[in-house]
Amino acid sequence: MSQRNVSLFHVLDPRQFDRTLLDDLCALTTRLRQHAKSRLGARSLQTLLPHKRAMLYFTQPSTRTFLSFDNACHLLGIRTSEIRDPSISSEVKGETFEDSIRTFSSYVDVIIMRTHKAGMAAQSAALMDRIERPVPIINAGSGRDQHPTQALLDIYTLERSFQCRGGIDGKVIGLMGDLRRGRTARSLAYLMKNYRDVRLVFIAPNAFAMERDIKEHLRGNGIPFEETDSLASVIGELDAIYVTRLQTEHDVGDESASFDHARFRIGPAQLPALKPDAVVMHPLPRGPELDPAVDRDPRAMYWRQERNGMWMRVALLVKIFEVEGELPD
Amino acid sequence: MSQRNVSLFHVLDPRQFDRTLLDDLCALTTRLRQHAKSRLGARSLQTLLPHKRAMLYFTQPSTRTFLSFDNACHLLGIRTSEIRDPSISSEVKGETFEDSIRTFSSYVDVIIMRTHKAGMAAQSAALMDRIERPVPIINAGSGRDQHPTQALLDIYTLERSFQCRGGIDGKVIGLMGDLRRGRTARSLAYLMKNYRDVRLVFIAPNAFAMERDIKEHLRGNGIPFEETDSLASVIGELDAIYVTRLQTEHDVGDESASFDHARFRIGPAQLPALKPDAVVMHPLPRGPELDPAVDRDPRAMYWRQERNGMWMRVALLVKIFEVEGELPD
Amino acid sequence: MSQRNVSLFHVLDPRQFDRTLLDDLCALTTRLRQHAKSRLGARSLQTLLPHKRAMLYFTQPSTRTFLSFDNACHLLGIRTSEIRDPSISSEVKGETFEDSIRTFSSYVDVIIMRTHKAGMAAQSAALMDRIERPVPIINAGSGRDQHPTQALLDIYTLERSFQCRGGIDGKVIGLMGDLRRGRTARSLAYLMKNYRDVRLVFIAPNAFAMERDIKEHLRGNGIPFEETDSLASVIGELDAIYVTRLQTEHDVGDESASFDHARFRIGPAQLPALKPDAVVMHPLPRGPELDPAVDRDPRAMYWRQERNGMWMRVALLVKIFEVEGELPD
Repeated sequence: MSQRNVSLFHVLDPRQFDRTLLDDLCALTTRLRQHAKSRLGARSLQTLLPHKRAMLYFTQPSTRTFLSFDNACHLLGIRTSEIRDPSISSEVKGETFEDSIRTFSSYVDVIIMRTHKAGMAAQSAALMDRIERPVPIINAGSGRDQHPTQALLDIYTLERSFQCRGGIDGKVIGLMGDLRRGRTARSLAYLMKNYRDVRLVFIAPNAFAMERDIKEHLRGNGIPFEETDSLASVIGELDAIYVTRLQTEHDVGDESASFDHARFRIGPAQLPALKPDAVVMHPLPRGPELDPAVDRDPRAMYWRQERNGMWMRVALLVKIFEVEGELPD
Repeated sequence: MSQRNVSLFHVLDPRQFDRTLLDDLCALTTRLRQHAKSRLGARSLQTLLPHKRAMLYFTQPSTRTFLSFDNACHLLGIRTSEIRDPSISSEVKGETFEDSIRTFSSYVDVIIMRTHKAGMAAQSAALMDRIERPVPIINAGSGRDQHPTQALLDIYTLERSFQCRGGIDGKVIGLMGDLRRGRTARSLAYLMKNYRDVRLVFIAPNAFAMERDIKEHLRGNGIPFEETDSLASVIGELDAIYVTRLQTEHDVGDESASFDHARFRIGPAQLPALKPDAVVMHPLPRGPELDPAVDRDPRAMYWRQERNGMWMRVALLVKIFEVEGELPD
Repeated sequence: MSQRNVSLFHVLDPRQFDRTLLDDLCALTTRLRQHAKSRLGARSLQTLLPHKRAMLYFTQPSTRTFLSFDNACHLLGIRTSEIRDPSISSEVKGETFEDSIRTFSSYVDVIIMRTHKAGMAAQSAALMDRIERPVPIINAGSGRDQHPTQALLDIYTLERSFQCRGGIDGKVIGLMGDLRRGRTARSLAYLMKNYRDVRLVFIAPNAFAMERDIKEHLRGNGIPFEETDSLASVIGELDAIYVTRLQTEHDVGDESASFDHARFRIGPAQLPALKPDAVVMHPLPRGPELDPAVDRDPRAMYWRQERNGMWMRVALLVKIFEVEGELPD
């Protein structure tokens, strides 16, 4: 059942994932995690892809995403080479971006890339589709653009949190913070079209409200949502609250200064109003919007969410290299 | 015998090692080194921990210690991820140090860290002891503070050098150089309390003499020591001379300028006075206090000492992950 | 047959390779590449050298050469440690270059180095030849000096391109561009003495003509060559054209400004004049001398040449560690 033949090559955009593929990846992620719990299982994962090599091309630094991918590779025995130092990558700039990417593809079996500029992963994938020995491109975040593996790990964490309650279908999911500029909240909202009877609650100041394109997409897919700037008025209805940080790095002027953290945060004061079986999520790193005192609450799911990210990336690599069938049952 | 059940988790401070553990680690180090001499043995080491992942978090650069740990991991099949570039690590600074460390712990099985500021390894270990999925912390040097694996490799090199002469017990050990500020000399002197009938000789200018806390510790443990600023007057009595470099990086004013290298160095001129079976040690890198012409003398032990460092770190990892029992006899 | 006992330790200079060793390495490279085409073969390569550790010491950045070597190591299961960041390597400068190299040799089994200054690989090899536990040194490019593995991959690509036509023997090979300063063109011309009935054609402006030492070497070895500044007048005779870029980084004044790219380039306009079975080579990265539109022509061999570089490096490592005999036939 879990080995349905959904094949995957490039991973560029959360929009390429439909419900079948999402369910498939979630089931595979859980299977891999369970597998790794025994020592024998962990060792057998190592034997899946020791003959493969990955390139981590991270000219936009991101320690968390880098480590998550690097260790996902290591869990499967994949060897990694990396370019992280901007001064090294600038040295490459004597040649065109396409020649550099083609060079990387000469040496490895998959390129995982994170760049400042939007569209570079898509451009690399298009190049691969033209050449004789293409390798898959995984977008690990490009500019304000897309960050598909973050969206997948969020979906997985929701599905997993509700595994005894029917999964994401039928749940009320709150998204709070800088919804206008945060790509994780946008992608997650987008992917909700794959689930039944979901209701979304956007909690943000007016100036940071979810953008119109996403709201139109939701209306077009019949996903109900409401918007509010009062957490207190909705917190009791939520099955999950996805907290996000202020995207100050995308400020043009002084926009972030107006954001009132006191009204859009989860701390010990907010916890009593939250359902006993609700979950608190956050893509991390966090700012003042999420109090470290929440870490000890059993509903805090963000540290597990982070670790889920590594496992979802393991699942993607297993899928891309089509070695799912070699996992013992 | 060598598999006594002494367990180890964090490695933070040389003071956590007693004689039992020191003897145990020294025996294990020798066993591992012997093991690796045959090709079959070297390959079997690789199969001990291929399912484990280490993070090398070196925000204080140290090529030597980094390479020693990285290759110790590789000898056991452990995969490594690294943060060495200060510009990458500063990017992490958007979040608290504790959130960063917890993030690393999400992805790997052990964190090896070297930092400018003292106490960060201890703080990380305390965090680990509070969370659900703790991983061991190994202190690879934090500020002027502690550098426990250096102390262990020094002990091992002494034990090994004297293996046919009853080990460290009963030996006369000279420590020379900037004893006041050198943490290696301080740690080594501290650990001498674990050995019987040892005598220490501190050879340093007055302004760089061993600090009072260590001398009081020695008196409290009944370890005899003497202090001198004349190498010539004591060199003939020494079984080992541990030479150290001037810690100019800890100068506040111009302290180091007064240090007379000519009087506290080992070169070809000093060698004839040294016992035929004495050993010369140095933690490296060296300055003018140790003439490269000494390298060819059979009593020069410092290059082997450096390599011993890698093997002692292999032994620590074997101990931490409790795979000693899997080594063939 | 392919296991003739030609042993190899340091790789420093293309001049150390004679015809026997070149043929041997080319045959081995092809065998390894074929081997890796099946999954079983790729996995068996991994088992050749998992107990070996390499150090990549690249203080002169070169992403292409770095990745080629790093992945060559990974193909054989060799674990790699790296120093690429100049700020990290400068930290090492507290000690002498020789002490640093000796330190690296304490931890690994082979040192692969690329430096700005000429002669450093040779100096490291000389140090190794003096110490107790020497490890092989591979020169991955030192200054304007030597870049032996580039020369080897060029030879391999020529041999392989002409495999059904008797190999390099008897071919007409054009070298075009900045022949005076390009070390790849110089090394390739030098190595031609190992082949029979070869004719060389140097295509360059007068100011960038091949230097006298190489021409004297060719005359001494009876290798005919001609010089021209007109590509059009010779292009139809060539079995291979090796295009090189302008070495602007070696300009003292404004030399490169006089170079007329329009006359020394391969683009769609030049292709019709080229023999149907000729090959176009280039060491990459490329500049205006090689039009990306050529990539689609079946005679374009430079991307395969790049990938051959990785495989030739795999062959060198197999040779150095003497595991050729363990390859299944």
